[in-house]
Amino acid sequence: MSTDLKEKKTETAGEINARDAYPYRFLGAINSPEDLRKLSSADLPLLAAELRHFIVNSVSQTGGHLASSLGAVELAVALHYVFNTPDDPIVWDVGHQAYAHKILTGRREAMATLRQTGGISGFPKRSESPYDAFGTGHASTSVSAALGMAVASYLQGATERWHVAVIGDGALTGGMAIEALNDAGSWKDQIRLLIILNDNNYSISAPVGALSKNLTKLVSTPAFLGARERSKQVLSHLPSLWEFAKRFEKQAMNFVSPPSSLFSTFDLNYFGPIDGNDISYLVRVLQNLKTQRGPIVLHVVTKKGKGYELAEADPTTYHGVSHFDPEAGVQAKKSSAPTFSNVFGRWICDTAEKDPRAYAITPAMTEGSDLDEFAKRFPKRFRDVAIAEQHSVTYAAGLACGGMKPVVAIYSTFAQRAYDQIEHDVALQHLPVVFAVDRGGIVGADGPTHHGLFDIACFRQFPGFTVFTPSDENECRLALNTAYSLDTPTAVRYPRGKGPGTPVTAVNGETIPIGKSVEAVRLPDDVPEGQQVIFLAFGAMTWRLMDAVKQLRAGLIDMRFAKPLDREAILDAARRADLLVTAEEGVIEGGAGDGVLEVLAEADAEVPVLQLGVPDRFLPHGSIDALFRLCGLDTDSVVRRVTERLRK
Amino acid sequence: MSTDLKEKKTETAGEINARDAYPYRFLGAINSPEDLRKLSSADLPLLAAELRHFIVNSVSQTGGHLASSLGAVELAVALHYVFNTPDDPIVWDVGHQAYAHKILTGRREAMATLRQTGGISGFPKRSESPYDAFGTGHASTSVSAALGMAVASYLQGATERWHVAVIGDGALTGGMAIEALNDAGSWKDQIRLLIILNDNNYSISAPVGALSKNLTKLVSTPAFLGARERSKQVLSHLPSLWEFAKRFEKQAMNFVSPPSSLFSTFDLNYFGPIDGNDISYLVRVLQNLKTQRGPIVLHVVTKKGKGYELAEADPTTYHGVSHFDPEAGVQAKKSSAPTFSNVFGRWICDTAEKDPRAYAITPAMTEGSDLDEFAKRFPKRFRDVAIAEQHSVTYAAGLACGGMKPVVAIYSTFAQRAYDQIEHDVALQHLPVVFAVDRGGIVGADGPTHHGLFDIACFRQFPGFTVFTPSDENECRLALNTAYSLDTPTAVRYPRGKGPGTPVTAVNGETIPIGKSVEAVRLPDDVPEGQQVIFLAFGAMTWRLMDAVKQLRAGLIDMRFAKPLDREAILDAARRADLLVTAEEGVIEGGAGDGVLEVLAEADAEVPVLQLGVPDRFLPHGSIDALFRLCGLDTDSVVRRVTERLRK
Repeated sequence: MSTDLKEKKTETAGEINARDAYPYRFLGAINSPEDLRKLSSADLPLLAAELRHFIVNSVSQTGGHLASSLGAVELAVALHYVFNTPDDPIVWDVGHQAYAHKILTGRREAMATLRQTGGISGFPKRSESPYDAFGTGHASTSVSAALGMAVASYLQGATERWHVAVIGDGALTGGMAIEALNDAGSWKDQIRLLIILNDNNYSISAPVGALSKNLTKLVSTPAFLGARERSKQVLSHLPSLWEFAKRFEKQAMNFVSPPSSLFSTFDLNYFGPIDGNDISYLVRVLQNLKTQRGPIVLHVVTKKGKGYELAEADPTTYHGVSHFDPEAGVQAKKSSAPTFSNVFGRWICDTAEKDPRAYAITPAMTEGSDLDEFAKRFPKRFRDVAIAEQHSVTYAAGLACGGMKPVVAIYSTFAQRAYDQIEHDVALQHLPVVFAVDRGGIVGADGPTHHGLFDIACFRQFPGFTVFTPSDENECRLALNTAYSLDTPTAVRYPRGKGPGTPVTAVNGETIPIGKSVEAVRLPDDVPEGQQVIFLAFGAMTWRLMDAVKQLRAGLIDMRFAKPLDREAILDAARRADLLVTAEEGVIEGGAGDGVLEVLAEADAEVPVLQLGVPDRFLPHGSIDALFRLCGLDTDSVVRRVTERLRK
Repeated sequence: MSTDLKEKKTETAGEINARDAYPYRFLGAINSPEDLRKLSSADLPLLAAELRHFIVNSVSQTGGHLASSLGAVELAVALHYVFNTPDDPIVWDVGHQAYAHKILTGRREAMATLRQTGGISGFPKRSESPYDAFGTGHASTSVSAALGMAVASYLQGATERWHVAVIGDGALTGGMAIEALNDAGSWKDQIRLLIILNDNNYSISAPVGALSKNLTKLVSTPAFLGARERSKQVLSHLPSLWEFAKRFEKQAMNFVSPPSSLFSTFDLNYFGPIDGNDISYLVRVLQNLKTQRGPIVLHVVTKKGKGYELAEADPTTYHGVSHFDPEAGVQAKKSSAPTFSNVFGRWICDTAEKDPRAYAITPAMTEGSDLDEFAKRFPKRFRDVAIAEQHSVTYAAGLACGGMKPVVAIYSTFAQRAYDQIEHDVALQHLPVVFAVDRGGIVGADGPTHHGLFDIACFRQFPGFTVFTPSDENECRLALNTAYSLDTPTAVRYPRGKGPGTPVTAVNGETIPIGKSVEAVRLPDDVPEGQQVIFLAFGAMTWRLMDAVKQLRAGLIDMRFAKPLDREAILDAARRADLLVTAEEGVIEGGAGDGVLEVLAEADAEVPVLQLGVPDRFLPHGSIDALFRLCGLDTDSVVRRVTERLRK
């Protein structure tokens, strides 16, 4: 346990055994916010320390989003203490900061199952608790959702109900958050909407963009510190906050200009910035604000990783963690087989070394996309555009018009945000932008908001796109080489984590022929008629199916491309086999398997086809293996399904 | 011709025959911006008047976007006069204001073919002209694209090249524009990027949102008017604009606070507002700004419809026009058969009358979606959220969480902007939001940026969605009734314009069974074996295929739903027919026809299938009939394709 957390204990005079989760003085008895609201406000600092201690211990066992949740402990306590949850809904933007919220709302014990198969979600989820007012996962949605709820309350005459959106400074850069601020600012006293800007100077990666810089400047100036003291005195004691605040706002304009001007542009009443890790103060401010009406912005400054020294020092490492020892902290991973992200990271560096036109763009996922080294080595040709997927794509389109060779590194699930820009700005103009689509397929613990299941079906719709689905690490490198060599839009889609461990040898720009598959496993000659099965596999399914293919004595074609499809190979397989099995890690509706059916229909090839993919329902979180079983995509299920189909 | 335009002529001393396009004193000789740049700046006011006259005459013949282009005449002239186009790229946001730009860049004669089959596009288009630096159509992309170009120039050492984005106040509300401002503000003197805020206090509909209100307030205050005069004197004469501007900006903060604070939030140097219809002044300001570096915002105020009195008075009517008499103006349409939009407009009013939970949302398409009457009758339950598709959807999700029954009226092509919100916020949470998806299919003159071809394939991907594809006006009403009655996410997708004219009788909330098709034309009993064809049609294809069905003596099933599909009907048709023909007005890749193939594959039903839809390439603009022929979806083509397929 960190020194800082130990200090906290001393400060708050509570006696906590650092190695045991129980007993806690307060936390053990809080099974709902009603229990919380029975506490004296003087008890809240200790409760916050207990929560922090509990979170570190719990997340070190289960893994999860640690640093953000540590920073937002006081926010969660104060909001549930002051507001009448769940009747007053709280919407946590992104939701990875909401563990204290989960613990306070009846899920303390369930935290042991966080992100585990069958356990509770790492994000707020409506079906999990009435306190989870809105499911989140993707960034920047909270203001829109809370505004919708506030307007619904207004129309239904529930005029006392408050609606709270908690949005980080990182998520505020997402365009839809600003769209929502513009709309929210048109409302006056009909609604009660509190937008809390949780400013920890961090998205997942280090902060970027002009707004972030201005927020930082703001909270680090002596003027702010002085103002904070002044406002602290007044905000806590004056009953008529509103009138004061109006005056304060005017004065404040002189020194809190950047965020205040953003919010005043949208006619939103702005308060702050205040210290969001000071629970007593936070509670008093919220109690004061609660007496007001209309849309209000409260700017709180919190520390990501707060109370756990290691996380405070390195919030990026402690943003998302696996199981670790709280005493020792997260240990650097031993060098091992590269992930697909690593294959990409190396490729982009090698490419930039050879070609001065290469340019890499990420929407706030530098580390996750393995662009750290590139960013260091080629800073002029690297751009983290912040959480701004739409802009990232059209910015790339502009670069391509200017003669550069932009590569957008983007997670499959976040590429959804830029569907229109990919179609309208890149595909329609045939611009040579390479999309390195990471986390394509089942991602595991992050669950339904983060699985990348729709990407193949989407990219396949766009005329002129070449969609690569590499099946292993070396194929990934080959696909990237080839995509980059084309003068048209391309997407290379690869899964989260590691592949089969194939050595990456295609390091000299080797390319592969467009739209040509490779036969990975030849259908044995001696398989009797009626039993001859050929798999047409896309991406990682190729190696995942190997055992099933062996057991079934089937053939396996690594399709390599979801678009264009290898028509010749499909028709040849149709002639040779009694059953074709298409397999992809994504939705069947519109996926690559549908493309195979199109080819067969067009050629009037009559062959039974079994389509394997993710079934038509939302896939929960859990271990990758459990989710593959759930989808009937594990070896046993595949063997069973194929055998059953052959029997028909 | 309007009085105002006549006055303009007198003012500028040019002799223009109001009824003839030629001769013009200057315009006839301008075949490229190089010709323009040979003129004296004193000649530019007359040239602007000639352009305006030409545009009114030309667009009155071809139809097109009139009011925006009239407002931006001086901008187009001044930009091409001052900057070194096409080497200095200009990106016109949305692009419907760019007719003067087209005329000045070698397309004067071609304006007669504007938006016609085979003619020039109504929007900038890279393949049409080197002066069209970036293809537009959807809003809010220009800053991203121009920033990309500016960074490309910086990296290539083209340090003198300017890059201009012209963005309207309407498009500025789109989130991706703000994402781009945030990124642009991080750049300093490395790049030369001029962002022109073309403030005409209008998107397509009347302006909404807090920002718009503040812009209006700003430019209508006496303080602004005074400031404008002062700045006019100085900006035009001082050589050292920059130093002055810095001081001016500080002073200006006192009265130009709203937009200035938006831009200063993003560290962007802001100039203005200035009169964007004053050509001489505009040229001088641009010449001054051209000597600077870094990202700059120039705020110009223009009048939508400028110079054509009728359009100035009613810019909404004159936003997009068909052929009209310039003297008489656009005539009110005689009441005739309702469009699909009208069917929706009536339905939403009727529904709101009965159900206080009904709530209608539009992202800046009140008139186009036929929500005018609803907005008047139910103002509390109506929300135009501005050009903000993403917010519109998640706002609806919030309303649904709050117990309302939100209906999002959205064009198919603009729904693409909210792909992620539809999936992540609505579908994943199973929220009862109705999407009334207008302009689904081929839209005609607006072309590839506006065709709605991907919607079926997208909505079909989402688990739990019910996707209605009504085939005529009454079916549309039935679909809306039914969608609204469900407690899950739904989309009702209908085409632009009119249908077959079926009377709308389902005005009492009648519903249809989910996932059940109807047999529209029974396959005649006496069709010989080998010739038996059944069409499975989605949406408007049902009536469009009627003639072909008759000629072919085929059967026709109106599928009614793209999701869930009527499995039983499909398999029954497969048993009865020698050929199934799926037909939809959208892409084949991932579309409803693919869904039919999935059903057949799963059931091992061996029947030849011909998939009709929009082929896998981007569809140009043109007349609906011409585009249907191009896609092989007109009667003759369908008869031929089916006959050929039967012969195989």
